[in-house]
Amino acid sequence: MKKHNFSAGPSILPDSVIKQAAAAVLNFDNMDLSLVEVSHRSPQFDAVIKKAQKLVLELAGLENKGYEVLFLGGGASLQFLMTAFNLLPEDGKAGYLDTGTWSTKSIKEANILGEAVVLATSKDKGYNYIPKGYAIPSDLAYVHVTSNNTIFGTQIMDFPKVNVPLVVDMSSDIFCKELDFSKFDLIYAGAQKNIGASGTTLVIVKSDILGKTGRTIPTMMNYETHIKKDSLFHTPSVFSIYVSMLYLQWVKDLGGVAEMEKINNKKADLLYAEIDRNPNFIGFAAKEDRSIMNVTFTLTDESKKDKFEKLAQEAGIHAFKGHRSVGGYRASIYNAMPIESVQALVDVMKAV
Amino acid sequence: MKKHNFSAGPSILPDSVIKQAAAAVLNFDNMDLSLVEVSHRSPQFDAVIKKAQKLVLELAGLENKGYEVLFLGGGASLQFLMTAFNLLPEDGKAGYLDTGTWSTKSIKEANILGEAVVLATSKDKGYNYIPKGYAIPSDLAYVHVTSNNTIFGTQIMDFPKVNVPLVVDMSSDIFCKELDFSKFDLIYAGAQKNIGASGTTLVIVKSDILGKTGRTIPTMMNYETHIKKDSLFHTPSVFSIYVSMLYLQWVKDLGGVAEMEKINNKKADLLYAEIDRNPNFIGFAAKEDRSIMNVTFTLTDESKKDKFEKLAQEAGIHAFKGHRSVGGYRASIYNAMPIESVQALVDVMKAV
Repeated sequence: MKKHNFSAGPSILPDSVIKQAAAAVLNFDNMDLSLVEVSHRSPQFDAVIKKAQKLVLELAGLENKGYEVLFLGGGASLQFLMTAFNLLPEDGKAGYLDTGTWSTKSIKEANILGEAVVLATSKDKGYNYIPKGYAIPSDLAYVHVTSNNTIFGTQIMDFPKVNVPLVVDMSSDIFCKELDFSKFDLIYAGAQKNIGASGTTLVIVKSDILGKTGRTIPTMMNYETHIKKDSLFHTPSVFSIYVSMLYLQWVKDLGGVAEMEKINNKKADLLYAEIDRNPNFIGFAAKEDRSIMNVTFTLTDESKKDKFEKLAQEAGIHAFKGHRSVGGYRASIYNAMPIESVQALVDVMKAV
Repeated sequence: MKKHNFSAGPSILPDSVIKQAAAAVLNFDNMDLSLVEVSHRSPQFDAVIKKAQKLVLELAGLENKGYEVLFLGGGASLQFLMTAFNLLPEDGKAGYLDTGTWSTKSIKEANILGEAVVLATSKDKGYNYIPKGYAIPSDLAYVHVTSNNTIFGTQIMDFPKVNVPLVVDMSSDIFCKELDFSKFDLIYAGAQKNIGASGTTLVIVKSDILGKTGRTIPTMMNYETHIKKDSLFHTPSVFSIYVSMLYLQWVKDLGGVAEMEKINNKKADLLYAEIDRNPNFIGFAAKEDRSIMNVTFTLTDESKKDKFEKLAQEAGIHAFKGHRSVGGYRASIYNAMPIESVQALVDVMKAV
């Protein structure tokens, strides 16, 4: 049976990407060698990473605008630390918007290397909304936000306007909709939600913001190390980068980010309409901040839990339980999720 | 044509591992989902990482001896930094044996966080030997060595005897031969040479050496973070860990490290015998320090270069050029390399 994969990450990939990835593990680029037994410095892999970098700039509309594209190890969790190492002077302050678990973790790392000023937080309501109208002090080295909160199902619609570098963790919503990406100075995103498999993290950085802290940065923590070596300072996760290249090409072939946005809006609208229509369900996130990537909701009557979950299982709905800190349900409907799977979930919701 | 893959890393994998990995990318554990679209917290993947950790302890003979097994991102290059963060007090010193490029890089990171004392170096002879008989000061926080030098083709036969934690970078020779692994307190190894695909780094650490520096360690840099969460503090490289699990199982099925050593010795003996017998070739490394993993050699008569390389190409010999810092040739004959491929190279050497 075809599964409807609502996993929050690692998560669904396009079928064509999975098939191409599996084929390359057996024989990469007609080399009679597996993708994973070829040097990362071979011309064949060099073409892969260069193509992935080019696709990122194309999809973001950032070609020839001073941005560098990196694929690094360690996940977004390592980026919480790297952003602070590269942008925060030892006696410096940075502004952080606290919109949930991942923001909190990034604040923790900045406080190890300097001072993180919390601009605003939605902790008072269990992170079910995005704070707005907060003041931004003038003495910050940078401002950091999490664009989409996987666990709580909220998403920033309007980014803060700042005169310092704007850093965004886009792990769970990169390339889900059109944005003026040139507003951002540093974007990072673990690949395993919207642009590939786990094991690599995309970093898009405007190089002129780097090298200004006066801090001695350990080699692997320094974006400039990786920029100089084009993401090949050390052996990267070859398979993961290959999968991201395939995924980004799939987005491009589909019509790019504009088309992706149309599809994502249709999927989100379908699911939120059912949550709002069906008295058995209630959404978790404030309506104006609802994420089009992670849809969080719960039953209004817990006695229907067993029936709902049994019907879902019979329909092949996979991994739609809410995060333990929120409970209820979470449907992650990332870029690769087909609308048919969302319809399958809606059909089950109607049948409860 | 079957290729003979002498790549220094990423490098050859057992055929059976490649086939199983490709199959799991299409359908993992009969879940009707790809390995790379399943949560790292699913019971199915949890079984994979637990099995990989158990296999490591079994193969190393380290069960129930206080060691923890981690699979981390960022490669061995990140371990150069993490070892110092976890073991070096801010005013502390650590002893480093400088046996080549990778040692030098690890020394650089330790000097950012404290003081690296170089115990001995073989730089005077282009790193073609392993220093011996050096003194070890009594005020060191730990001693760090690189067990095998991929670029130069040297390997430590006798490890230093120390009273402080002994840290070993085994990236290019882990599980190539039997060792009393309990002599080591921290072992790390990028997976892409001897135990898998790129994207994950094995760390085996005796937990009682941790937490003693008084230093504030950033979350992702702290081994204790990863130990507490069983390598799942953040989303790891799921595919890479799966491949390592398969590879470690392959070593076990073959008869374990003892049997691996017999096979590796046969391969190395075959190749070194030809280098020593054939007047057209000369080895790079000092005989007593020759690596059984990376065999470095060069032509005695450069005019035979074209003929040798043409014959090699015709025979399907892949990626046997020496590193740019040494020149000549390097045959990497890691665990997964079959003796038939070594024989194919020897046949070409005989024909020059």
